[in-house]
Amino acid sequence: MKTYFDCIPCFFSQALRAIRVVTDDEKTQRKVLDYVAKLVPELPLDVTPPEIAQRVYQIVAEVTGNRDPYREEKRQSNQKALSLYHHLKEAIGDSSDPVLTACKLAIAGNSIDMGPLSSYDDIASIADSALVSPLAVNDYEEFKKNIVSATHILYLGDNAGEIVFDRLLIEEIKQISDAVIHFVVRESPVINDVTVEDAVSVGIDKIATVISSGSDAPAVILSQSSPQMLKKYHSADVIISKGQGNYEALSGEKENIFFLLKIKCPVVANSLGLGVKNGDNILLKGQRLSNN
Amino acid sequence: MKTYFDCIPCFFSQALRAIRVVTDDEKTQRKVLDYVAKLVPELPLDVTPPEIAQRVYQIVAEVTGNRDPYREEKRQSNQKALSLYHHLKEAIGDSSDPVLTACKLAIAGNSIDMGPLSSYDDIASIADSALVSPLAVNDYEEFKKNIVSATHILYLGDNAGEIVFDRLLIEEIKQISDAVIHFVVRESPVINDVTVEDAVSVGIDKIATVISSGSDAPAVILSQSSPQMLKKYHSADVIISKGQGNYEALSGEKENIFFLLKIKCPVVANSLGLGVKNGDNILLKGQRLSNN
Repeated sequence: MKTYFDCIPCFFSQALRAIRVVTDDEKTQRKVLDYVAKLVPELPLDVTPPEIAQRVYQIVAEVTGNRDPYREEKRQSNQKALSLYHHLKEAIGDSSDPVLTACKLAIAGNSIDMGPLSSYDDIASIADSALVSPLAVNDYEEFKKNIVSATHILYLGDNAGEIVFDRLLIEEIKQISDAVIHFVVRESPVINDVTVEDAVSVGIDKIATVISSGSDAPAVILSQSSPQMLKKYHSADVIISKGQGNYEALSGEKENIFFLLKIKCPVVANSLGLGVKNGDNILLKGQRLSNN
Repeated sequence: MKTYFDCIPCFFSQALRAIRVVTDDEKTQRKVLDYVAKLVPELPLDVTPPEIAQRVYQIVAEVTGNRDPYREEKRQSNQKALSLYHHLKEAIGDSSDPVLTACKLAIAGNSIDMGPLSSYDDIASIADSALVSPLAVNDYEEFKKNIVSATHILYLGDNAGEIVFDRLLIEEIKQISDAVIHFVVRESPVINDVTVEDAVSVGIDKIATVISSGSDAPAVILSQSSPQMLKKYHSADVIISKGQGNYEALSGEKENIFFLLKIKCPVVANSLGLGVKNGDNILLKGQRLSNN
């Protein structure tokens, strides 16, 4: 997905939220906003939004020296989501289609995103409403068929907290598939995105092989990916792409990608089409997209 | 009210909405956004938001040559609101306190604002909901007392469409007060704000003396006001300030101002305090504000 003019105000809002987490000093806050402003006339709009967001968060890091503003936020959301693990595991087990229920939870978990959102609902409420809400785009039957026959699945993680919901989905996937599963995290902290540390802290490393994307972008950007990551990407039968950033980065790709995400901005909703609106939960086979 | 960092993304959004009304040409749209970006590092944040918005809309006008992007929008909203005039007049007449009902309608009419908002509800629905909704801040009793004893009232208009609701309020004010009433419009078009042309088109000139603020700012900025306007401002017993822009510009002033507005952004809600939240309708005696 290309960057739209509507993304520009959002980059400023994101910078402002991140900088306010780091410091109350208005001079420093102003400095960050001025740097972001200087970036605007140089922006290549044919790149994807997470590539520009990457630069915005790099500015926050460079100006403040703090490369991980959401560190404490991430720790808390991992902990909170982990405290719900057994309750959610039970809800999945009690449901008529445990993989579908785990998908719904994993998509709803994508609400835990400090990029486009300034806050999110209580994680327990997110989970509860996911169990009863339908998916606005639902390619689940095809997803399940692909998973069952896959030999290698690449799972692109997105945010802290959400990663506990990903763990639950991976556990269900392993019940119906013998595929080798690699779980991709960001190379270093950006927004509240998952890193190796997060993956280990919630036990993902016990059920999948954790690998780095090779980049600090808040999405898997193929041109920035490590050779190891690219090899896994191209050899996977199925790619499970979590979240809006990964969708924005990979929506034009031809691989067998399933996008599991909550739509968190009207620009993404419009770009996606299919009658999708802001706030919708979707499970979409990427090859259905018109730019594929 | 000073300008907050949160206003910066909003200036970009406002520029983008205005430029899209004028042209589909992405190069021109980009040029406007780049100019707004160049403005950011020079922004004096101790000035009020409408002073910066004024510069933003001047950029749109300079780049496109179109000084009145919302001309057709304004014509339509005046016409639509005028078509409701008799219905609203009747609703006011049938109510137990016609001046209060007219106040509520005039405040609700402030929803018709293309600055902070990208759209607004149908004008008839705005009116209907105003008749049954309470005011979140309600200094009406004091407002009425002041109006009754006033000899000179200065009424600061805000938006097209809304101005029909202002006419209804002024007509009710004239039932309880012999005051001379001056109605202030913008010197030239900016956003969908009222100009002399709008005032005349809805008949305000028949019930009040229409004067210009002397400026194309989307608010009454005293430092930019004409000597005529300043004379009226300082000699008025009561100033009725409509809308968010006029509130932002005059919230720190000492005169006997009543602010009638719909809150259309969380920054204004927070700055105002008093437990007010985004979307609230308020009738506030300005001298109650802590910076007074």
